[in-house]
Amino acid sequence: MRNKLYFQARLKDKAEYAYKAIVQEKTSIGYYKLPEQDITGILAYANKIPSDVTSIAVIGIGGSSLGAKAVYEFLKPVEKLTRSLYFFESTDPINIQNKIDMLDLEKTHFLVISKSGTTVETFAIYKLLLSKQADTNAYTFITDKGSELEKYAQSIDASVLHLADNVGGRFSVLSSVGLLPLALCGVDIEALLRGANSVNKSFFEDGYLKSTLLEKALFYARNHAKYHINCLFAYSESLKYFCEWYVQLWGESLGKKQRHSAFHVGLTPIGLIGPKDQHSFLQLIMEGTRDKSVTFIQIEDFQDTLKIPDISLKHLESLDILNDISFAELINMQCNSVMEALLEEENIPLDKIVIPKANAENVGSLIFYYELLTSLVGELIDVNTYDQPGVEAAKKILKKKLKKKLDI
Amino acid sequence: MRNKLYFQARLKDKAEYAYKAIVQEKTSIGYYKLPEQDITGILAYANKIPSDVTSIAVIGIGGSSLGAKAVYEFLKPVEKLTRSLYFFESTDPINIQNKIDMLDLEKTHFLVISKSGTTVETFAIYKLLLSKQADTNAYTFITDKGSELEKYAQSIDASVLHLADNVGGRFSVLSSVGLLPLALCGVDIEALLRGANSVNKSFFEDGYLKSTLLEKALFYARNHAKYHINCLFAYSESLKYFCEWYVQLWGESLGKKQRHSAFHVGLTPIGLIGPKDQHSFLQLIMEGTRDKSVTFIQIEDFQDTLKIPDISLKHLESLDILNDISFAELINMQCNSVMEALLEEENIPLDKIVIPKANAENVGSLIFYYELLTSLVGELIDVNTYDQPGVEAAKKILKKKLKKKLDI
Repeated sequence: MRNKLYFQARLKDKAEYAYKAIVQEKTSIGYYKLPEQDITGILAYANKIPSDVTSIAVIGIGGSSLGAKAVYEFLKPVEKLTRSLYFFESTDPINIQNKIDMLDLEKTHFLVISKSGTTVETFAIYKLLLSKQADTNAYTFITDKGSELEKYAQSIDASVLHLADNVGGRFSVLSSVGLLPLALCGVDIEALLRGANSVNKSFFEDGYLKSTLLEKALFYARNHAKYHINCLFAYSESLKYFCEWYVQLWGESLGKKQRHSAFHVGLTPIGLIGPKDQHSFLQLIMEGTRDKSVTFIQIEDFQDTLKIPDISLKHLESLDILNDISFAELINMQCNSVMEALLEEENIPLDKIVIPKANAENVGSLIFYYELLTSLVGELIDVNTYDQPGVEAAKKILKKKLKKKLDI
Repeated sequence: MRNKLYFQARLKDKAEYAYKAIVQEKTSIGYYKLPEQDITGILAYANKIPSDVTSIAVIGIGGSSLGAKAVYEFLKPVEKLTRSLYFFESTDPINIQNKIDMLDLEKTHFLVISKSGTTVETFAIYKLLLSKQADTNAYTFITDKGSELEKYAQSIDASVLHLADNVGGRFSVLSSVGLLPLALCGVDIEALLRGANSVNKSFFEDGYLKSTLLEKALFYARNHAKYHINCLFAYSESLKYFCEWYVQLWGESLGKKQRHSAFHVGLTPIGLIGPKDQHSFLQLIMEGTRDKSVTFIQIEDFQDTLKIPDISLKHLESLDILNDISFAELINMQCNSVMEALLEEENIPLDKIVIPKANAENVGSLIFYYELLTSLVGELIDVNTYDQPGVEAAKKILKKKLKKKLDI
């Protein structure tokens, strides 16, 4: 991947400080180690799932589903995957029923993913599915070592895989949480990690991404009050769920009370898909309040030759300029045109990420790039990047409501 | 629908001014008239499409697709629709090819929708489809009266429907742009308009929505610099595309230079789906910068009895509180719990919209509610709500690039 910044951050002493903090973090925060992990255990486990299983269903929400979904949906249109992957990630009854109707339960293996083992949505759905598929061999559980969920799984003789140590949900896609479902669908998880590791090495071994990521993080952090909305504008329909993964990673990591103040801080992520959102959100970026940065993601080679035919339409001859152009070329020309138009404006910080083509290696790079950027910005805006205390209050209220109902 | 605000706007003289401006606008802006339009022509046209047509494909982007998609995707899970609806709205080659592969071209009717008749994406795709399906009876064109596209359609003896006068793309879902594709799929478009009209009447004939919408618009406008991000948090998976429609309507209408100043203003829309985004964006709302308002949408009666079975899991007995609860009840309890948690916080303006159930009438109400709110806020922040001058620059650059390529 390449990344070109169209903005500059000055006073780089703080960047060196952030870099040191990140190097320090590597000893305690687990996700940094994932690109170099040993995956033979995951691959061996995946191979044990019978070949007559045609679908994999993840029962999990948030960090337990968004990462695998991002990679799967990115690769599905371009690679021959071996199994279909489904996600149960809502308590919407109509959505649940429709998904169940789509599955052949006898040919589905379920992955129940919950770090704590007490996620309400996950177990509401698991109980429902268990009432329809009682065979415990149809389930694998992924959870923290020693959790109550592990004890439950052992009590029914079901298989358990552990989460890597100190890896939070939104940073877990390159752990068993993402790798097992992806491996089961035939995704080349070795290539995924290779891509992540190339970013890892470039950053930690003085490659070009070290200065780029530091400069970008420093710019975002220093201007967080001015440019507090960070748009990711991806020119490929298949990056839609990558954008959703980014939204969770960025929003949940950086929307916090500061560690050393009473301030609420945060950076708001927005995921956009081009060219569709040129006809939606672009107007707001071009002429609205100057509070947004924009990162474009472009796929250099779509490896596709679909062309606009050389047809002239009477009265619409002005559109003949489209004739004989490939769609791949058109979509990238559209991306470049929007960038050039935005560069003409004041106060819209832009950068562009180019990946050579759509494959596992490159999405692995994108993932690790965004994880490192998130960690750096979190350090520079003085928040704990890895917790999410704000979501506890609603959970407590829900439990009270449920208990109250039970008492009636 | 009901709408309860948990905030107050004072100094309401400006609201009366906005109301008068809107009443004035009714004479020139076309969308206000749509709820009371005569749809016999659209229904008659829809009836003429042969019954062996099993799929409808819209070739259109932005305002030409987002509205119909919002309604279709909302109703598809709960109503028996008669045809499938597809949207060609990207120049991503892999996405286009996958959609074509899904269609039986002989059993598909195509709706080519373009106000101006020169939308690049639409005609790139139309040319491609024309090379695969040359029968002009398979196409209907929807465009402005007298446009070049109308002339083209007449030259090939294809059918043309006109857009209603002075209705911009993002306000066009209740015109032929949305109504024809929806009618062709068996959506009760009369009910859709009835729902819109109930909001229309409540607002313009001194019903309860007049004061509610005015208060909400006034609060948003007056606090636009403080709360410049407006989240729509919908507790139903099927409102996902309604959120995308809202994002276009809000962002493209309100992100502008002011009419009477050099200021860039705007309000940034965010679409969220519960409970999924409790595990993603909620942390940022709870603890991040206090720059967001949140509107919850709840479906009162999912008309669904799917329940969590009464199963106790060893070591996970704390989750027995879920047993025997219906998913419909659970999802609404989750919504209420998040609201209550946010109400405990300072400076997070909230409101809640409740629709009785998922049907055409209620989504019609939601649409018209948001259109009126957009018009009111636009008036109060001094922008032209109905244009989108910011998107022209990129279009011009693209045309230059295409022409340059031609010259080589």
